[in-house]
Parts: sequence; C-alpha cells; structure tokens
Amino acid sequence: MSHAFISEILGTGMLVMLGTGVVANVILPRNKGFDGGWLLINFGWGLAVFSGVYVAFKSGAHLNPAVTIGLWVADQPFYKVTGPGGQVTATLNPTAGNAAWYILAQMIGAIIGATLCWVAYKKHFDEPADPATKLAVFSTGPAIRSYAWNFITEVIATFVLVFVILAFGPTPSGLGPLAVALLVVGIGASLGGPTGYAINPARDLGPRIAHAFLPIPGKGSGDWSYAWVPVIGPIVGGVLAALLANAYIF
Amino acid sequence: MSHAFISEILGTGMLVMLGTGVVANVILPRNKGFDGGWLLINFGWGLAVFSGVYVAFKSGAHLNPAVTIGLWVADQPFYKVTGPGGQVTATLNPTAGNAAWYILAQMIGAIIGATLCWVAYKKHFDEPADPATKLAVFSTGPAIRSYAWNFITEVIATFVLVFVILAFGPTPSGLGPLAVALLVVGIGASLGGPTGYAINPARDLGPRIAHAFLPIPGKGSGDWSYAWVPVIGPIVGGVLAALLANAYIF
Amino acid sequence: MSHAFISEILGTGMLVMLGTGVVANVILPRNKGFDGGWLLINFGWGLAVFSGVYVAFKSGAHLNPAVTIGLWVADQPFYKVTGPGGQVTATLNPTAGNAAWYILAQMIGAIIGATLCWVAYKKHFDEPADPATKLAVFSTGPAIRSYAWNFITEVIATFVLVFVILAFGPTPSGLGPLAVALLVVGIGASLGGPTGYAINPARDLGPRIAHAFLPIPGKGSGDWSYAWVPVIGPIVGGVLAALLANAYIF
Amino acid sequence: MSHAFISEILGTGMLVMLGTGVVANVILPRNKGFDGGWLLINFGWGLAVFSGVYVAFKSGAHLNPAVTIGLWVADQPFYKVTGPGGQVTATLNPTAGNAAWYILAQMIGAIIGATLCWVAYKKHFDEPADPATKLAVFSTGPAIRSYAWNFITEVIATFVLVFVILAFGPTPSGLGPLAVALLVVGIGASLGGPTGYAINPARDLGPRIAHAFLPIPGKGSGDWSYAWVPVIGPIVGGVLAALLANAYIF
Repeated sequence: MSHAFISEILGTGMLVMLGTGVVANVILPRNKGFDGGWLLINFGWGLAVFSGVYVAFKSGAHLNPAVTIGLWVADQPFYKVTGPGGQVTATLNPTAGNAAWYILAQMIGAIIGATLCWVAYKKHFDEPADPATKLAVFSTGPAIRSYAWNFITEVIATFVLVFVILAFGPTPSGLGPLAVALLVVGIGASLGGPTGYAINPARDLGPRIAHAFLPIPGKGSGDWSYAWVPVIGPIVGGVLAALLANAYIF
Repeated sequence: MSHAFISEILGTGMLVMLGTGVVANVILPRNKGFDGGWLLINFGWGLAVFSGVYVAFKSGAHLNPAVTIGLWVADQPFYKVTGPGGQVTATLNPTAGNAAWYILAQMIGAIIGATLCWVAYKKHFDEPADPATKLAVFSTGPAIRSYAWNFITEVIATFVLVFVILAFGPTPSGLGPLAVALLVVGIGASLGGPTGYAINPARDLGPRIAHAFLPIPGKGSGDWSYAWVPVIGPIVGGVLAALLANAYIF
Repeated sequence: MSHAFISEILGTGMLVMLGTGVVANVILPRNKGFDGGWLLINFGWGLAVFSGVYVAFKSGAHLNPAVTIGLWVADQPFYKVTGPGGQVTATLNPTAGNAAWYILAQMIGAIIGATLCWVAYKKHFDEPADPATKLAVFSTGPAIRSYAWNFITEVIATFVLVFVILAFGPTPSGLGPLAVALLVVGIGASLGGPTGYAINPARDLGPRIAHAFLPIPGKGSGDWSYAWVPVIGPIVGGVLAALLANAYIF
Repeated sequence: MSHAFISEILGTGMLVMLGTGVVANVILPRNKGFDGGWLLINFGWGLAVFSGVYVAFKSGAHLNPAVTIGLWVADQPFYKVTGPGGQVTATLNPTAGNAAWYILAQMIGAIIGATLCWVAYKKHFDEPADPATKLAVFSTGPAIRSYAWNFITEVIATFVLVFVILAFGPTPSGLGPLAVALLVVGIGASLGGPTGYAINPARDLGPRIAHAFLPIPGKGSGDWSYAWVPVIGPIVGGVLAALLANAYIF
C-alpha cells in the first residue's frame, strides 16, 4: 500500500500541476500561450492525465476520488500486479480503508501539484489580474451559476469519464494511457462549457486549498460556497457509472 | 440480440450526447468554449465517436444506420464474438431484421443523448439566442441551401466514412476505436464545410426529434424540409461504400 | 500489378479529395470551417493521408511519386505481401516500369480526388472569390515568390517526409498509418509556411490539371509558371532521402 | 559509438529543424501559418520530437543533454540493442565519455537543424521584422525576465520531461515515439508560458550559435545574458528527475 500511496501522490501531483498549468498559461497575463483557446486547454488537461497515468503505474493510476469510489462501489480491484506472462500475481482489494488512503494521497498530490504550478508561473501570478482569474487557475467555477444545474453537469461529465474508462477493459488497444487522455480531451470539449469540467474532487478541492494558503498578490475569495459542487457532483457521477457498469460491463 | 440492442443504445447515446455537446459549447452563449473554432468541433465529434465505440463493445459499435445498412448490403456480419485465442466463436448475421433492431436502437440512443446534452447545457439553452443556433446544437443545416448539392456532399462524406472503416480491416494497427475517431475528425475538417457533416441518419434525425419535444425557450422550427438530406444522403453514401468495398476490399 | 494500380488510384484519390477539401473548407466563402486556421489545415491534410493509406492497402500506399521514385532509387520493394505468420510471401520489385504505373495511377487518382472535392464544395466554388483563392484549393503557391528558394523549401520538406517514413521501419510501433499522418501534420506545421507544403508531385499537378478543365465560375490562371516547383522539388527531396537512407538506415 | 554519434546528429538535427521551423512559420511575416497560435507551436514541437526520435533509432534517441545527463546520473544504459526475440544483445554504457560524445553530437545536430530552418525560411528571414522576433525563431526567451524564476520554470518543465520518459518503461504501450511527442505537446501547453519551454540545452544553445553566425538581415543581439538559463535549468531538472526515478521507478 505504501507504494500505491506514493504513486497516487506523484501521479495526481503531475496531473494537477500540468492541468492547472495550462489554465495559467491561457488566462494569466503576459504568458506565451495567453488567450490560446479552449482546445489548447482541453489538450493541456488531457495530456496532463496522460503524464499522470504513466507516473502512477504502481497504483493503477486512479488519480481521482470519483474513480476510486466508483471502483469501490463496483467492487473491482484497485490495482492488479501482472507477472511477465500476463497473469495476475497480486491485487489490491477495494476496501473502504484502501479507498481512504487513495483519496488522501490524491488530495496531498493535488495540493502539491497546484503549488508547483504557482511556482512555475510565479511572475505571472504577481502581475495584476482579476481575483477571479487567479482563482480560476486553481479551481473550476460555473459559467452561469446555478448550483443544481452545475451539479448535474458535473454528474454527467464524470459519469462519462468513469463509465468509458470501465468500458476500455473489453476492447484492448495499444493506446495505454493515451486512451484516458483522449477521453478527457473529449469530455472537456463536449461537456466542459458550463462548469469547466472538474470531474475530479481532488483536482478541484486540492488546488482550492492551495489557493487559500499561497501568498498570491491580489488574490480574492476561494468561492467556497461553490466548492461542494465539483466534489459531490463527480462522486455521484462516478457511483452512477460504477452501478451501470456492474449491470452492463462486468 | 438484446445485448447488442442495449449496446447500440448506450453507444449512440454517448456519441450523440458528446457530439451535440461540443456544438453547444461552441455556439451557445456564455459557454467556456464559446467561439472555440471548427477544429474544436471536429475533435469533439471525433472523440464522441471514440467514447461511443468503446461503450458499444457488445454490438460491433455501428452507432450509425449508414454503417448498419452498408454492412447489410455488403453481407458482412454485424458483430463477431472472438474467443481468448482470437478465433471467432459467434457472429450476428446481417439480416434485415437485425438491421431494423440496430437502427431502432440507434434512434433511441440518439434521442436520449440529445436530451442529456440539453440537460447538461440547460442554463445555456435558457439564454437568449437565435432559434437557428439552438437548432444547430441538435441537427445539421446547410451553409448554402441547395437540396441537391447538400445531398451530394452528404453522400460523399458518408461514403468516405463507411469505405475507410471497411478498409481498416486489412491493415491491423493498435489504434482500436481511435482509428474511427480520427477518421471522423478528418471528415469534419475536409468535408464538413457545406453541410456540417451529419454522415449518420440517427445522429441528425434523433436530435431533431428531441428538439421538437424538449421545452427550450425561444426555440424555432425544426427545419423539417431539410431533414431528409442528412438521412437519405448518408444511407446512399453507405450503400455505395459497401458496393465498392465488395468489389475491392472483401 | 492491376490490384496495385487500382489501389494507388483509390488511395491517392481519397488523399487528394480530403486534402483539397480542408483547404476549400477554410478558404472558400460561407463554409462552416471558414478561417479555421493553419492547424486545422495541417490536421486535415494529415488525416487525409491517414485515410488514403488505409485505402491503398494493396499497393503499399505510396500515394506520392516522390515516395515511389525514392523507393526505386533506394532499390527497396514497392510492396510486400505477408502471410498469416508474418513471413513475406511476395514482393513487387522496384522497376522503372512499376514506378511508371504507380505514378500514372497517382496522377489519375489526384485528378479524380480534386474533381470530387469540387463536387462536394460546388456551391462554395460558385460564390464570388478571388481567382487565386479558388486555385489555392487545388494547388500550392508560394507565400513569397522565389523559384529557387521555394524549390529548396519543397526539397527539404519532402526529404523529411520520405526519410522519416523510411526510418519508421526499424522502430515498429502500433500506430500503422497514423505515424505517416502525424508526420504530415508535423511537416505542415513546421515547414509549410513558405510554399504550402506540396511535398507530392501528384498532389499538386493532378489538382492543377483538374482546375484547368473544371467549369469553375470566375476561375483564373493555373499559375503554370510555378507548377514545376512542387513537382521537381519533391522528386529531388525524395531522391536525397533515399540516398541518405541507403547509407544510414538500410 | 560512431553509429550512435551520427544517429544523435541526425535526430537532433531533425528535431531542431522542425521545431524552430514551426516557430518561424508562426512568427515570421508573410508565412501561411502566421499567427497560428500556441497549440500549433505545441504540436509542431511535439511532432518535431516524433520525427527526431524515429530518425535516431541507432542511439536510443536522447536528442537532449538533459536526457543524456539524467540517464548518466541514474546509471541507466544509453541504448539497448535487442535481438529478434526481444532479448537485449548489447548495451551502450552510461560513461562520462559516452555522455560527452552524445552531447557533442546533439550540439552539432542542433546547429545544423537551425541552419536548415533558416534555409527553408530564407525569404521570410529577409523580410523586415523585429530583431527579437528573428532571435525567437532560434532560441527561447522569457515572457517576464527574472533569471531565478525563469530558471525554476525550466527546471520544473525538464523534470517533467525526463521523469515521465523514465516512467514510460513500466507501462508498455503501442505508441512508440508518439508517447514522447505527446508529452512534449503537453509540457508546452502546460509549462511553456513563462519561458517558451527550452527543456533541452542543445535545442536552445545550438540555434543561438547558428543565429550568431548566419547572415540574417536586421538581426540583433543573441541575448547571451539569458543563454545560461535554458542550459543549466534543463540539466538540473534532468538530474532531479533521474534521482527521483532511481528512488521510485528503477
């Protein structure tokens, strides 16, 4: 478990650093990628997942409490160790305790990742900008605020994430982590418009905590009244995906 | 057949929800992807197919009546079940009855998918916008209206879709569903200009039906006089592709 | 050989129809992809190659006289037939006669493909537009006219195309035709600025011939004084690549 | 070693020619890709790596002193020769001498590559433009000058490059060189904003030397006071990645 714990920290850290990084590049002043467009953000987040999944090879690369809770609900192993002949030699069972450790690691990784993004973009965070823009590097916010509908959008988008990941199993391809990366590009393009597609409680809450303690000039509120939406929404979406997967896929 | 029926519903629903979703993101007001460009739409639709194909692993992932009818005309099995050694253990034969069930499932899935897109983008559909814009999230329309030439463009684009999919067979690669996804990105980039590349009767007619019954503020006509073009055009294109494939590929 | 001949016609036709199609989409008035940007054009051409390579599975998918002449100079087989165990059961030898047949097929395919592009975009070709714009759908032209430097740019870009394709051999991956497609995306992004990256004599001359005979309203000159550059430049680049490959790769 | 030496020259030359080429296309006047956006630059550099890695198949495709020094610090073989059954038949050991040869080859390749970019874009370099713009084709510069923070950004970005490449090992996929290419696209999108992501001492210093001796009209200073940042920063990042990889991956 200690290997898996470190793996989830490193992988989620990589994911969140690169993911928040592309947002910093596009919305913070004077960056070379400033105003680079939504597709740039989609590819940035997708390839952030790509890197994170490779890094987290010791834990099955959940990187997301919605995935962990989904696998737990579906009673699927968190991680399989395969021997040289492809046979499964060990598995990490989906217990509540293991799920808690995974989620703790994901939160730690997300906070570290967001902090490293702030370090990499330090001089651009120091430039004058709207406080909401500075927060938007870290955490998602709604295009049109409506807790109920924003919640539903996050449920749907995370349902797609977890359900399609679970559907990768029966169709082996040679894509490896690229399949998840492209899925995330697609979710961002197709369902990211209303809420900015958190689709991962750690990805949103971890950076929001980092935003609270980092010494960012001119930063404003953390918009904590919205913070539950990108936490509870993805969890509900992941659980729904796991339940449907239990009926349809496994 | 019941597994395949549900598979086509789920896969087409995923495809249409994500596909109409990217259009909503780009053209409905106040979205984060607003005005994100044609390439964003192309990748959105391509990756919508990517997800839909993985989900529909129990039915061969037609997701498109033009594909189903093309395989039926070419007398190719709708779906092959392969055992662990790669040998084919069962096939679903291309009968007219099976084709009808597939198409029914695709239509049901497309209507459900378009409805879920509306749910995900509810607050943005409620914003004031041109009625033609709101329809354009659901169904295609011509850039320059000319039933004959629009029809021909849909025939050509769907011919490419079905013929290249059938040409995947002799060149195995490790791409899996990504190959179809990239093909759809390419068709959108190269042949989508005049009509918006329906290339799939269910993808166009299903959402048009959903547009008719959903309570969308300020919605206008469903432009039903054009609705036959993205239905009959793709079917003709798929049949032509199947006939040429019978001569050249199989 | 007759199978290979038809294969090269179909594959080059697919390549040129989709490739000229993306240009039409981006530069002809009133298209949905109008003004969609250089990356859209790069992906359009790259995925045009993707489709063309799959379609031309019976001939090794040269689709380009520079590739055919390069393989002929390098004395590499034009096409290998492999049996179920992966062993080579037959090859098509790189004779001058076979090269001539391949190039003839490529030219026929390119003319057909450009004609089908015109059919798909008929109503947009009928709109008023600068004659140079209408020609630019079919054939390349220089950003800054200088026959010598334009020629050199085409030599370099085609050298990259043929040399990297020949370098694919020693590094097997699961990408199949996607590797060539991505290479073409990259060449367009990196070396397409000065001349529009013909990098293929058939791709440029075939559509220029089609432009000459198609009844396009308001069309202008075919700029025949430039036409030798995207023919001779790619051939020289392909030969240089083959010579270096003979020394370094094979 | 002589094969590896030539391989690193050719591969790095390909990488730098295509990488500087996409910048030329986007920022030099009158190019067809002018003002094509940050994502175009990201894909251009990523696919430059793609081509370079295929070309450098005889040396393990380091193409970057930060990779070479990282492998040397981690005591990992520079290159493995595998026989037909996949078994390793020879390795190139990570000695200081071999590292020096690799880095020399990378510098030679980078200078040649930048020179070929200048040749391909000769007429566009001859156009009037800001001297800083002409330098920016060759070498990176900071968006906000701060040697300390720019250095840190390069350390972080190169850490990601080398650490994720080392993490590819335990997760075999069918992507081959595409995995590195996509990683570079992602780093550019996510961490390229402040410094333009040199992440490779040869990629930055080689072209800066070429800029110094090439006869470019209206060229200005080579900004040599900044030149150490994209050399030392990537080396430090690569070493840190190797150290962490020794603890976590190997």
